[in-house]
Amino acid sequence: MEKWIKRAAAIAPLDEERKTRARARIDDQTRPQGSLGRLERFMECLVAIREAEKPDVAKKRILIFAGDHGVADEGVSAFPKEVTKAMVMNFLNGGATINALGREIGAEVRVIDAGVDADFGGDPRMVHAKVARGTKNFLKAPAMTEDELDRALEAGWKQAEEAKRDGVGLIGLGEMGIANTTSASALVAALLPAPAGKVTGRGTGLNDDALRNKVRVITEALRKHEVRPDQPLRALQCLGGFEIAGMVGVLLGAAALKIPVVVDGWIVSSAALCAIRLNPDIRERMFFSHRSQESGHVHLLEHLKVEPILNLDMRLGEGTAAALAMGILSAAVRVYNEVATFSEAGVSNRSEKAEG
Amino acid sequence: MEKWIKRAAAIAPLDEERKTRARARIDDQTRPQGSLGRLERFMECLVAIREAEKPDVAKKRILIFAGDHGVADEGVSAFPKEVTKAMVMNFLNGGATINALGREIGAEVRVIDAGVDADFGGDPRMVHAKVARGTKNFLKAPAMTEDELDRALEAGWKQAEEAKRDGVGLIGLGEMGIANTTSASALVAALLPAPAGKVTGRGTGLNDDALRNKVRVITEALRKHEVRPDQPLRALQCLGGFEIAGMVGVLLGAAALKIPVVVDGWIVSSAALCAIRLNPDIRERMFFSHRSQESGHVHLLEHLKVEPILNLDMRLGEGTAAALAMGILSAAVRVYNEVATFSEAGVSNRSEKAEG
Repeated sequence: MEKWIKRAAAIAPLDEERKTRARARIDDQTRPQGSLGRLERFMECLVAIREAEKPDVAKKRILIFAGDHGVADEGVSAFPKEVTKAMVMNFLNGGATINALGREIGAEVRVIDAGVDADFGGDPRMVHAKVARGTKNFLKAPAMTEDELDRALEAGWKQAEEAKRDGVGLIGLGEMGIANTTSASALVAALLPAPAGKVTGRGTGLNDDALRNKVRVITEALRKHEVRPDQPLRALQCLGGFEIAGMVGVLLGAAALKIPVVVDGWIVSSAALCAIRLNPDIRERMFFSHRSQESGHVHLLEHLKVEPILNLDMRLGEGTAAALAMGILSAAVRVYNEVATFSEAGVSNRSEKAEG
Repeated sequence: MEKWIKRAAAIAPLDEERKTRARARIDDQTRPQGSLGRLERFMECLVAIREAEKPDVAKKRILIFAGDHGVADEGVSAFPKEVTKAMVMNFLNGGATINALGREIGAEVRVIDAGVDADFGGDPRMVHAKVARGTKNFLKAPAMTEDELDRALEAGWKQAEEAKRDGVGLIGLGEMGIANTTSASALVAALLPAPAGKVTGRGTGLNDDALRNKVRVITEALRKHEVRPDQPLRALQCLGGFEIAGMVGVLLGAAALKIPVVVDGWIVSSAALCAIRLNPDIRERMFFSHRSQESGHVHLLEHLKVEPILNLDMRLGEGTAAALAMGILSAAVRVYNEVATFSEAGVSNRSEKAEG
């Protein structure tokens, strides 16, 4: 795992000088200073991440990592495992919600099989990076081996490299995997740390009994594996999923390659937390799209001191909130790149005097 | 003013039957029920407003109404009146923030001179509907005559008709007018009703002394004109602006013609309040884009029981928040129209059982 610790350590903090230069341009554009609120902070970060005078985010790609979870055997999900494959096929056929949103914002939707417990027969419409047919049940054993973790991370890193090669300027992360809210809750509980009850929610519709069972499973798994908050890779190995590890690989790779990444909801946020535990400087290179309805998300966002872009009470996953937030970020970049400055437009700027 | 009271009264509440049918389709789409949160409620309303099985909002138009305000003479703005014309020219030249956002979401940006205190020499790139060169100073006299109010409302109504004729499926409202936060605050104070101090903010950057002066001007004007909360047209005449009245005309016309309207920030919201006071049923036919940083906005939104779509700490106007929200609504419609149902996609839907 040395390789991943080194790769994470190599990620630099954002260049404050670039942010300051971006701030100067924003302040000189034809509108009262500060009047675009948080949109202006997005602009500063995007300029600094892309390391470009005028960042190009025209080419967008949504990466959906799919994987199955051995812990599904413990009855922690309202859906059977088969739904993972069925939804992947739905993504490939263009019929899912994320496909519609990808078309709306002009983003390619790419599906990566990181470890679905099903055979896709080499379907050419997706990326085949299956580490194994699902993780092991982490209540009984570590979810994956060290080697499997490495391969899952590598699958994500490779997607970041391909995005770079293809000129992608903005990546959205999404996921599909029955029982993966359980894995995400276990990861967050281990790394915050927090009691399982505080960061475990109803997923896609558990009733009270099923929720109690889910909390019990996670609590026992945490006791069994004894992961410390400063052990993100061990947490991923013991409690993670192949799709979650794949997304950690993307986050590390994209940070190294200067591509901003938009985090979707609860599960992608658990991957983000792993990446941040590897190197806190990565946090400014990602954007949190929304506050999910999954109950632990609010704790995690508070812990990370993050105000997400949107708050629409969504809880779907698939990258759907990331897609909507990508639209907002794309708009911010366009404003930054295209709006005239006061001198260009011949509009007098009296606000400084009036405020002074 | 009988004409406007009749036109407003003719606006029907949304058809609950259509909403229920929309709900059924939303629930049958390939995702867990309710997982798109507030986006689903937007879909229901958009289907009911458009009265279409699959609403078409592809063609979008942002209407920016511009006007000047006599009350600017009281030193209520940090900017001189000339900025209204200068910004209109900036809009026409495509260099303003709203132009960039219009390009981003694929919306036409149309500027209407409802009453700018400047001559545009018949510039063919804008709509000439100038009622007068600015309103009168409402601290000394009613802002406009009854006839002027009628002409301003009519200018807006005509824009709704043109939008209908051109196949526009979604309208965004924006405005430009130095001192128009003062007019908006006076309108909201009169119609909520509320003390001026509670609904008056710093506009584009007033210091404490200037803010106190602004509150004093509005308080005196309210005392002078004695508008009651059930007199929205009289409020518009005494305290409004030509651009604000124009937007009320759009709201009434678009409601009659089944076109959803996206309200921008503080000033457009004051127009929305006038329209709602004319007929509360109009409220469901409009969408509030964001919570402006202008301090009275939060009170107004609470009063209207509205949760806005976005919350990005913006306070620019021009229709900029409306544009971003139009992107979200457009995405919601696409999801509604294009996402497969469970039966179409061959995905099993176990969520009902699990939740039951």
